[in-house]
Amino acid sequence: MADKNQDIEISIEEKEVNKEQEELKQEENKEEKMETEENIEQLKQEINQLKEKLQKTEEQAKKLSILYQTLSQDFESYKLRTLKEKEQIKEETIEKLAKELLNIVDNFEKAIESAKLSDDISSLAKGVQMIHYQLVKFLENIGINEVIAEGEFNPSHHEAIDTYISTEHKPNEIVKVLQKGYKYKEKVIRPAKVVVAIPPEEKEEQEKNK
Amino acid sequence: MADKNQDIEISIEEKEVNKEQEELKQEENKEEKMETEENIEQLKQEINQLKEKLQKTEEQAKKLSILYQTLSQDFESYKLRTLKEKEQIKEETIEKLAKELLNIVDNFEKAIESAKLSDDISSLAKGVQMIHYQLVKFLENIGINEVIAEGEFNPSHHEAIDTYISTEHKPNEIVKVLQKGYKYKEKVIRPAKVVVAIPPEEKEEQEKNK
Repeated sequence: MADKNQDIEISIEEKEVNKEQEELKQEENKEEKMETEENIEQLKQEINQLKEKLQKTEEQAKKLSILYQTLSQDFESYKLRTLKEKEQIKEETIEKLAKELLNIVDNFEKAIESAKLSDDISSLAKGVQMIHYQLVKFLENIGINEVIAEGEFNPSHHEAIDTYISTEHKPNEIVKVLQKGYKYKEKVIRPAKVVVAIPPEEKEEQEKNK
Repeated sequence: MADKNQDIEISIEEKEVNKEQEELKQEENKEEKMETEENIEQLKQEINQLKEKLQKTEEQAKKLSILYQTLSQDFESYKLRTLKEKEQIKEETIEKLAKELLNIVDNFEKAIESAKLSDDISSLAKGVQMIHYQLVKFLENIGINEVIAEGEFNPSHHEAIDTYISTEHKPNEIVKVLQKGYKYKEKVIRPAKVVVAIPPEEKEEQEKNK
């Protein structure tokens, strides 16, 4: 009988323990569940943030792509336009110069007509001089000027075609201009062809070295 | 006694039921836990995929941004270079034309020098004609040609300076050229100044309307 009573007591005790354990387990489970739920919530939040950031970045990339394409097209059409404009500039420059030259051609033809009707050489010579003056003025207006060919020879402005033995001139002095030189703005486009003075002793040396 | 026995039986039964319930609960918990773990795993995977995609998109955006900047800089320097090149083209065109004109200027000066030394008008006239021919050839070479001023008056090529009453000519026929016209390529840069024929009856009508 005592045994049975003991059994009952044990059973009750066991029950109590079981209950406690179960409660503890439940509590643990509950906590675990809460933690997990929190964890899931955090993950979901992270996903949302990532999605948002991804969307923004995609929009930015799309915007940049459109900007790039537009700029690229602008650049291409600018290049094409530039090619045409360059050709235009060339043609406009030629047209402008030619138009001014036409007046000189007119005067030429008038002078030739006059020469046919008259024997007056001085009048024709005057006409020719006038046209020459016009032509030189035209060149000056577009920036072409004669190169100064006086004094000392300068290889960047003059071309020595011949030498002249002289004691009266300084060595390297320009003695004669065979053909006028011209520059466009500051650039020599045709050097003056000149004869340059050399002293007699230098000439002798040159001969010896030949 | 029977009571106590009954109690024990109940207790055992209860225990069994409790155990079963607990097992069931544990099973449920386990399943739930597994599901949750799977869920978390999926969320983490999604996060990883999003992160990967975000990184790629960011790299793409960065690449596009660099491309855009490079293109933009290229465009700016192309514009600057183009400005310089346009000025260059103008100057090169002028220089090229001027260089060719210089030979004509040279011949002019030779003719003038010759005229000073000689009384031969026919030689001077020949010289002048030669230079005129050179100038016209020069213009032809750069694309300048005379406008045809024969036959019917054409307002896009000719400018009527005067009229000439005539029964011998067709109405609107060019009777005389007062100044030659010129075109550059296909563009008329100076119309020919002409006298145009009109029939007598038209002239009378014009007078009446005055």
